[in-house]
Amino acid sequence: MAAGAEVPFETTAEHACFGGVQRFCRHTSAVIGLPMRFAVYQPPKPSGAALVCLAGLTCTEETFAIKAGAQRVAAELGLTLLMPDTSPRATGIAGEDVEWDFGSGAGFYLDATAEPWARHFRMESWLLTEWLPLLVDALGLDAARIGITGHSMGGHGALTLALRHPGRFRSLSAFAPIAAPSTCPWGEKAFSRYLGEDRGTWAAHDASALMRQARCPYPAGILVDQGLADKFLVEQLKPEALEAACSAADQPLTLRRHAGYDHGYFFIQSVVADHLRWHAERLG
Amino acid sequence: MAAGAEVPFETTAEHACFGGVQRFCRHTSAVIGLPMRFAVYQPPKPSGAALVCLAGLTCTEETFAIKAGAQRVAAELGLTLLMPDTSPRATGIAGEDVEWDFGSGAGFYLDATAEPWARHFRMESWLLTEWLPLLVDALGLDAARIGITGHSMGGHGALTLALRHPGRFRSLSAFAPIAAPSTCPWGEKAFSRYLGEDRGTWAAHDASALMRQARCPYPAGILVDQGLADKFLVEQLKPEALEAACSAADQPLTLRRHAGYDHGYFFIQSVVADHLRWHAERLG
Repeated sequence: MAAGAEVPFETTAEHACFGGVQRFCRHTSAVIGLPMRFAVYQPPKPSGAALVCLAGLTCTEETFAIKAGAQRVAAELGLTLLMPDTSPRATGIAGEDVEWDFGSGAGFYLDATAEPWARHFRMESWLLTEWLPLLVDALGLDAARIGITGHSMGGHGALTLALRHPGRFRSLSAFAPIAAPSTCPWGEKAFSRYLGEDRGTWAAHDASALMRQARCPYPAGILVDQGLADKFLVEQLKPEALEAACSAADQPLTLRRHAGYDHGYFFIQSVVADHLRWHAERLG
Repeated sequence: MAAGAEVPFETTAEHACFGGVQRFCRHTSAVIGLPMRFAVYQPPKPSGAALVCLAGLTCTEETFAIKAGAQRVAAELGLTLLMPDTSPRATGIAGEDVEWDFGSGAGFYLDATAEPWARHFRMESWLLTEWLPLLVDALGLDAARIGITGHSMGGHGALTLALRHPGRFRSLSAFAPIAAPSTCPWGEKAFSRYLGEDRGTWAAHDASALMRQARCPYPAGILVDQGLADKFLVEQLKPEALEAACSAADQPLTLRRHAGYDHGYFFIQSVVADHLRWHAERLG
């Protein structure tokens, strides 16, 4: 914690890890109107730079912290890791826990506009206007040196939040992102219910559509890793849509396709060090 | 798999990981009389050496594979990782799933001699006479270059199996082991029910007691890491008992005490690379 700072969140567990501290935390979100959970890894010698790591469907704030194996390199680089939960929890909305790919654990990192989700499912506003400023302040981070990454639904979140908020995140990468959610079953299901049936509103939350409206938003490049044995590759992830959009936007994209790798964290841990180094180089 | 070998187990899941393969497997154990589960990590260029990694109370064959972050260094060293489940499952014995520190998930790596546990809870015989030979054969491992390590109850398992079977494991280490189970609550509970109330039988499964009967069984040393913020340290783990026994047995012991670290896998992942390198150096 920054010296003398009032800490506006509760640490529910903390564990020494590679000379730093892995914390699991909770705060009461005014934006969401409920308690929200998140994890933070603080390296032994923080550089002030931070990387937001967004997890995928069914995951929680624990998933990336436990399974990605990122702390070792974060400790080496002085990079703080910020890992939010993937949705509000216990909202009381009927059916919130019924489907693994919608509702709890599936917030899609956007603000729902359709009922009954619009009151609590406000992940984008929570992350950008409340959670991130809170952590920048409490942990003494440099707001100008924050990168973002994510896996699957979290890769969608990283790409769309970075493109929707120019200048907010200095570096950008993703693991097996849902790259064109307007045109895949996971995205169609989530967008039709969070945003409504008017597909005209969907493009604003679709990384490939957003990229086509942009002009090289990340001149230092975007890194995306994708396993070729990923069972969701063809129907749900569609990296080729992002690749085409980046090409149209003159956006340098390092899209690495890995033979034999699937969608899970054994893949992520195999490439996570490259992502952390990618961000650290761009965050200074 | 070794070319042409018949594979006497079923792979239920496999994941590419650091150029190798993380498998989750199952076979029908004649010794235990039930299906048994285990995990294997095969590095991209196996050296033939292997490390048995035993997990702790409540854990399964998945725990070390998912949380320890060992595959990266195993891949680098060419070390195969062998990770068994921590007990038989679904034995039908009344009460097997009731207690978190006894029964399912708490096999203590011994052969029970007391009823009703004696029929199925035969972890030591399973591991030594059935599972390890099966894997040596199926994976083309060098039976003379196998090390053993483990965490907590698995640290107890590593130490006792190594000391009870001289020459079987060429290298030995442990993370926060239960070092003197005859004199701690976890061990007293398990031994009194698996082995019976006659404490005279317990010493044969107590690492510190076994070490006192030995004469420098590991001249190249034993590595033990222990966190000093481990809430089980004083009452359950007692590394000082092992330290005294090693001293009495002229056994070189590298016992590293780490300020601030607790009993969990954030600690293990922080030191796991040292253990893999320790074993690789001794396994050749």
